[in-house]
Amino acid sequence: MLLQKGQKLLFIGDSITDCERARPAGEGLFGALGRGYVSIVDALLQAVYPELGIRVVNTGISGNTVVNLEARWQEDVLDRKPDWLSIMIGTNDVWRQYDTPFVKEWHVYKPEYEATLRKLVAATKPVLSGGLVLMTPFYIESNENDAMRRTMDEYGAIVRQVAEDSGTLFVDTQAAFDEVLKELYAATLAWDRVHPTQAGHMLLARAFLNKIGFQWNR
Amino acid sequence: MLLQKGQKLLFIGDSITDCERARPAGEGLFGALGRGYVSIVDALLQAVYPELGIRVVNTGISGNTVVNLEARWQEDVLDRKPDWLSIMIGTNDVWRQYDTPFVKEWHVYKPEYEATLRKLVAATKPVLSGGLVLMTPFYIESNENDAMRRTMDEYGAIVRQVAEDSGTLFVDTQAAFDEVLKELYAATLAWDRVHPTQAGHMLLARAFLNKIGFQWNR
Amino acid sequence: MLLQKGQKLLFIGDSITDCERARPAGEGLFGALGRGYVSIVDALLQAVYPELGIRVVNTGISGNTVVNLEARWQEDVLDRKPDWLSIMIGTNDVWRQYDTPFVKEWHVYKPEYEATLRKLVAATKPVLSGGLVLMTPFYIESNENDAMRRTMDEYGAIVRQVAEDSGTLFVDTQAAFDEVLKELYAATLAWDRVHPTQAGHMLLARAFLNKIGFQWNR
Amino acid sequence: MLLQKGQKLLFIGDSITDCERARPAGEGLFGALGRGYVSIVDALLQAVYPELGIRVVNTGISGNTVVNLEARWQEDVLDRKPDWLSIMIGTNDVWRQYDTPFVKEWHVYKPEYEATLRKLVAATKPVLSGGLVLMTPFYIESNENDAMRRTMDEYGAIVRQVAEDSGTLFVDTQAAFDEVLKELYAATLAWDRVHPTQAGHMLLARAFLNKIGFQWNR
Amino acid sequence: MLLQKGQKLLFIGDSITDCERARPAGEGLFGALGRGYVSIVDALLQAVYPELGIRVVNTGISGNTVVNLEARWQEDVLDRKPDWLSIMIGTNDVWRQYDTPFVKEWHVYKPEYEATLRKLVAATKPVLSGGLVLMTPFYIESNENDAMRRTMDEYGAIVRQVAEDSGTLFVDTQAAFDEVLKELYAATLAWDRVHPTQAGHMLLARAFLNKIGFQWNR
Amino acid sequence: MLLQKGQKLLFIGDSITDCERARPAGEGLFGALGRGYVSIVDALLQAVYPELGIRVVNTGISGNTVVNLEARWQEDVLDRKPDWLSIMIGTNDVWRQYDTPFVKEWHVYKPEYEATLRKLVAATKPVLSGGLVLMTPFYIESNENDAMRRTMDEYGAIVRQVAEDSGTLFVDTQAAFDEVLKELYAATLAWDRVHPTQAGHMLLARAFLNKIGFQWNR
Amino acid sequence: MLLQKGQKLLFIGDSITDCERARPAGEGLFGALGRGYVSIVDALLQAVYPELGIRVVNTGISGNTVVNLEARWQEDVLDRKPDWLSIMIGTNDVWRQYDTPFVKEWHVYKPEYEATLRKLVAATKPVLSGGLVLMTPFYIESNENDAMRRTMDEYGAIVRQVAEDSGTLFVDTQAAFDEVLKELYAATLAWDRVHPTQAGHMLLARAFLNKIGFQWNR
Amino acid sequence: MLLQKGQKLLFIGDSITDCERARPAGEGLFGALGRGYVSIVDALLQAVYPELGIRVVNTGISGNTVVNLEARWQEDVLDRKPDWLSIMIGTNDVWRQYDTPFVKEWHVYKPEYEATLRKLVAATKPVLSGGLVLMTPFYIESNENDAMRRTMDEYGAIVRQVAEDSGTLFVDTQAAFDEVLKELYAATLAWDRVHPTQAGHMLLARAFLNKIGFQWNR
Repeated sequence: MLLQKGQKLLFIGDSITDCERARPAGEGLFGALGRGYVSIVDALLQAVYPELGIRVVNTGISGNTVVNLEARWQEDVLDRKPDWLSIMIGTNDVWRQYDTPFVKEWHVYKPEYEATLRKLVAATKPVLSGGLVLMTPFYIESNENDAMRRTMDEYGAIVRQVAEDSGTLFVDTQAAFDEVLKELYAATLAWDRVHPTQAGHMLLARAFLNKIGFQWNR
Repeated sequence: MLLQKGQKLLFIGDSITDCERARPAGEGLFGALGRGYVSIVDALLQAVYPELGIRVVNTGISGNTVVNLEARWQEDVLDRKPDWLSIMIGTNDVWRQYDTPFVKEWHVYKPEYEATLRKLVAATKPVLSGGLVLMTPFYIESNENDAMRRTMDEYGAIVRQVAEDSGTLFVDTQAAFDEVLKELYAATLAWDRVHPTQAGHMLLARAFLNKIGFQWNR
Repeated sequence: MLLQKGQKLLFIGDSITDCERARPAGEGLFGALGRGYVSIVDALLQAVYPELGIRVVNTGISGNTVVNLEARWQEDVLDRKPDWLSIMIGTNDVWRQYDTPFVKEWHVYKPEYEATLRKLVAATKPVLSGGLVLMTPFYIESNENDAMRRTMDEYGAIVRQVAEDSGTLFVDTQAAFDEVLKELYAATLAWDRVHPTQAGHMLLARAFLNKIGFQWNR
Repeated sequence: MLLQKGQKLLFIGDSITDCERARPAGEGLFGALGRGYVSIVDALLQAVYPELGIRVVNTGISGNTVVNLEARWQEDVLDRKPDWLSIMIGTNDVWRQYDTPFVKEWHVYKPEYEATLRKLVAATKPVLSGGLVLMTPFYIESNENDAMRRTMDEYGAIVRQVAEDSGTLFVDTQAAFDEVLKELYAATLAWDRVHPTQAGHMLLARAFLNKIGFQWNR
Repeated sequence: MLLQKGQKLLFIGDSITDCERARPAGEGLFGALGRGYVSIVDALLQAVYPELGIRVVNTGISGNTVVNLEARWQEDVLDRKPDWLSIMIGTNDVWRQYDTPFVKEWHVYKPEYEATLRKLVAATKPVLSGGLVLMTPFYIESNENDAMRRTMDEYGAIVRQVAEDSGTLFVDTQAAFDEVLKELYAATLAWDRVHPTQAGHMLLARAFLNKIGFQWNR
Repeated sequence: MLLQKGQKLLFIGDSITDCERARPAGEGLFGALGRGYVSIVDALLQAVYPELGIRVVNTGISGNTVVNLEARWQEDVLDRKPDWLSIMIGTNDVWRQYDTPFVKEWHVYKPEYEATLRKLVAATKPVLSGGLVLMTPFYIESNENDAMRRTMDEYGAIVRQVAEDSGTLFVDTQAAFDEVLKELYAATLAWDRVHPTQAGHMLLARAFLNKIGFQWNR
Repeated sequence: MLLQKGQKLLFIGDSITDCERARPAGEGLFGALGRGYVSIVDALLQAVYPELGIRVVNTGISGNTVVNLEARWQEDVLDRKPDWLSIMIGTNDVWRQYDTPFVKEWHVYKPEYEATLRKLVAATKPVLSGGLVLMTPFYIESNENDAMRRTMDEYGAIVRQVAEDSGTLFVDTQAAFDEVLKELYAATLAWDRVHPTQAGHMLLARAFLNKIGFQWNR
Repeated sequence: MLLQKGQKLLFIGDSITDCERARPAGEGLFGALGRGYVSIVDALLQAVYPELGIRVVNTGISGNTVVNLEARWQEDVLDRKPDWLSIMIGTNDVWRQYDTPFVKEWHVYKPEYEATLRKLVAATKPVLSGGLVLMTPFYIESNENDAMRRTMDEYGAIVRQVAEDSGTLFVDTQAAFDEVLKELYAATLAWDRVHPTQAGHMLLARAFLNKIGFQWNR
């Protein structure tokens, strides 16, 4: 287990991270962490490693792209002084290219996506006492030739490259979904192929926890 | 134009027909026809053929399968004595097989779908003074090898066969969507690939109207 | 078809344009364009000319007069850099003279109406790469001797004159309604003779589209 | 003043009488009489003739035609044992012919209107210790050649004839509105030409009170 | 009739004037004048003197004392440039002395009440082209020895004196209520002896209109 | 203290007893006893005599008269098998005579009031293992010559007589209010002179508890 | 893993099971399983064993005791024909003895609890093709001498004994909480020591899954 | 009785004081004082000592710690110029250490608690013409070895010491609860052991009133 006693673990991202978390920050009781994978990660950390006292914070905001993250990075990441940071972003950067193709200023294309992500990683990794986790965006579509799936995979590849270049932990969420999509049709996991059911969020939580050395049978 | 002065045209179906129509029946002012293709058909008939005085009625109900239609056929179709009837059903018959695969009693498989549809057509066609229109269900997915698309196409083929066998008008809604899917990604027309945007409903209305001899440039 | 690939078409006006559109601007998914003629125009453009990728934007605001338009012209028209612009204004300029006759500062009389409209047209036409469409206000009343109908016709005549003088496209919405009013009583199309049903909005959309060369049977 | 100490005066009709009255019957405190002419009549009776202790009851129901009145006559009129009864009905009987012309079973044509009204009057007049007041329906439209106005006038003529034949008090509400329409445009008194403003309700109350001998300067 | 064609008549006061009027100012359609005596005055002026085109405006605010009026006098009276002004204030000035006797800063005692009222009258009367009407506050309690009634009468006497000294029209609302209280118990007119039923508001409207020469039988 | 360990004490009455209690019966946690004197009695019994474990139940219903109590006596009193019963009824029996004087069937006059109360007492006293408490209705009006106060005092006198005749405990709530009305104006204790503030409910609770031997300084 | 392909697993219980599940039965998409341990179990089964296609159903109802379960056993358990059944009941049976000690008919004491539970187990075990899981009720209180904890432990011991006697699977939820209560104070897991946070629900899900042979590292 | 005629008594604290009081300050009619012990104190003062005219004000705010009090001390205490002040604070200072142990900046540890409380007392006591009452925080848990109870007792001891050092009145609320906890289980008085039922608030009110010389049998 890479997390150490008393550390703060912050998640940032879009609606998949947000999931109705509390404002201004998602932490504390009464469902403050939202109803998604962040809440599951927190529940598992408390249930299995209660002695570590890990403080989980959620600052995801629905609809965000990497450009939105940059705009609120100081306030929602740096000022909160996390020990660990997890970033999962890119869904909306890609999706808007496919659901509102005519509104081009809502799109974030690959060069801007990559440059911005690199900038955020570079600015943040040095100040994290714990570590940084980069999670790919994903698309719950089994057809790898689907246009949006193909694009999403390209953004995922950028995340992988940034992770490699910066030496951070990397979580391939698409791979986690692909495994289950062999058995289940996409609509079972997400009506719109983007916002997962609890089962989908569990997949995300498991992929994250496996990467940080969580021991399930502890 | 096949519709004649003073005739009543009734639409029945599922959520794509329903679209928040009024209860018990969708007809009259104040958006009573719902916000989908039925309302567009009605608006075009009034705007372009005001002298015909066509009375449009909507009895679609969200979530319905052909089995549900059968259960309310007397009350929602026969008792209302339409001159023309349009049926578009099958979405949920198929969808439940893919979004809740474990709940098998929610599924309507092909034999039951076909038998029930034939029964309804047989019971109703003779009493319609105008005519009967069968619209296929559809799936806004361009990949014809997608599992659910493939199934939906099979249900569409059943509708086509029933139309042929019974000599009724046939509207291939899937073909209408396929034409546009060449240009637009599925998510532009429907986030969940099932419930269309206004553009998608316009496609449905156009496909229907073209079949009944509507003159656009009148 | 006058519209060309990738162009932005912006509609501005009053409640007949607004129709519960999204704020700050009406564009994108989930009914953002409202429930009126703007949404129908958009649906038809996407359904019939999907390859053009026309971006439709709605900035109508309920209750607006031409004076209100002028006050927000920079923000709601010029800053959005449309290629095409459609203006339909005047309903409230006239209506307040008839429904609240004692509150005179709510009225916009003809000289101010004409001067303001000319000013907006003059300032905007040069920066439009596509074109400008002027739609008359209308009153769904078949009696041409009705006092408010007479006034509305005078405002419509101003719009026609401004269109002629400035060489812009002109849509006579009143004529479109008059055609249907031969068959249907006014209350069928609008309880208050101002806010149309879907059929009335379809008439507006048809009148607009016919003027820009839309091919219905394409 | 025709009303005598301790008498009960019941009003029945459609939405113009209803005006959000309390259920099951509109009487008592807290706006139970609704916000229309019934409430004004009650307020004037209490304010000007407090010693009479007239009990006013409102059983109007929005959307009612004379056919609906007949269906609830026992419960909403006879069982309540009024001394005086005022009937104002016919708006919807006529209006549906003009706003939903295709839905013919919503229309109440003249023969049925007259026969039903005569039947109700015949059954009720003998049991009223005070008297019966018949108020015409009205249409707030100054153009007497307007189609719906012309029809409404015909229904008003039926009411006048029934009143004459049965020897009951007759209130010509249309005449009351016509007087004011010389000065004010219809939309000032009612956006939809049917549901009046407070000024319109005051006209109705005045016409009623003048007929029963109310002394304004008492 | 003292009011002349085209004049503006503004009412200011507390909750008895306010009665859910529209904001920022109560005027226009859709119940904008509230549900109290102001709305009745307006309805009667329109119904009986439609040719005068009197514009009625309501700027009453619930809970106000004369001190609150002074604070908003410029904005809510002077800036609106009425021809006629009616002031009815004092209920809360007195009531708070009796319902929250311990919270003394909520009370407005007689010297401050009188001085402030005189100041407002002096500043406003000269700029009114029509006239000024001072209405007393009132208490719907028949026992003249009741402590709060006694105090309210003293405030009413101040209003009378100010009216006399300034030569303005004076409406003794308490006298109007006293007349009816001979026949009806206070609770019939107001559960809390302050906020009247429609009958009570009718009394206020009648007292006001009688003072300005309204002809009921016109 | 007359109450003994484990006994059930039931309160029945009108809105003064009800005070938003839970349905079907007011008992248990989460404010189930309402916000009035019943809740205060319960709180004091638990706080001062926790060892007695008195179970307090509230079955008051707003608007009830003694006639309404009789109709639900079996279900709301006898079936619940209380050891002690407290009845406070009469407010509405009297009030309707004064606030809606014309609606005579809402009134309960003295003979019916007395007969019904006697009947309820006779039927219930024998089955109570603890005892019966009769509380007078009251009117928070210091003027004993006020018409409604005078009537309420007469109803209170009936309660006193019934209590004497049946040998039950008697609580003179009017006397409790009269004591405080020497110092405070009626409106401080109840805007409508009927529904008390918390201070008024405390007076009721104290009067009740003093009668059953509650020791405040225990 | 004891569960086999295509089996149905039904959970019944009280509010800890219910957690806002859908009605009439909690199964399917859109959070139909509620937000508690049942949803977590379902999510883990789908995420880790997607090929098994386990159908999870939730019929917990807030506030239920074992007596309530018995009353709806036919409809909510037997008629649904589960292969596996999990019962967790007893919280309210005990809690009412401590939070509303005076309302004795809300309590379910040990003899009735045990007899009823045995009866349900006996009637159901034979018809389950999979198996039966008995989960103890629990109390999130680390002090074993706390009165309610002591009682809850006694009910847990009954469950253990019933499980042993009937040869069913047994989950000691109290033991699972006790483990974590060594590290965390009770209020971190449940403000009221009964309704757990997500971490608490995760503990329940883990205890259940470990008992049925779930492989976490699969 | 230490309170004297016309004095103002202000209560400040957290949610136990707040209890849905009015904003900005809790005083006046309509439940403005909230539903907790402050309202009971006020009701008893008015009911038993009406001639004193004590003005009670509530400025408690849910969730506050002593640090929050300090931040608003000028506005919510000093500016309101009370004669008497009662402070009950510390619940949240302690609770956050136990319900959200990982969010350390939400905790207020003993040194800061004591220093801040001393500072507030020192700044305020000299300006109070009546007196200062310090009430301990409390925890409705009978087990004195419970971790949070132990901490709460330590904060209570600080309050006692501050009271002694500053010569102010001291109310030991924990002792009041302990007395009743001998008879009743904690959950009867508060589901979460913090927010009391009405019975718990009565205990607080009694403890407070006994300290200021309230005579119950007056």
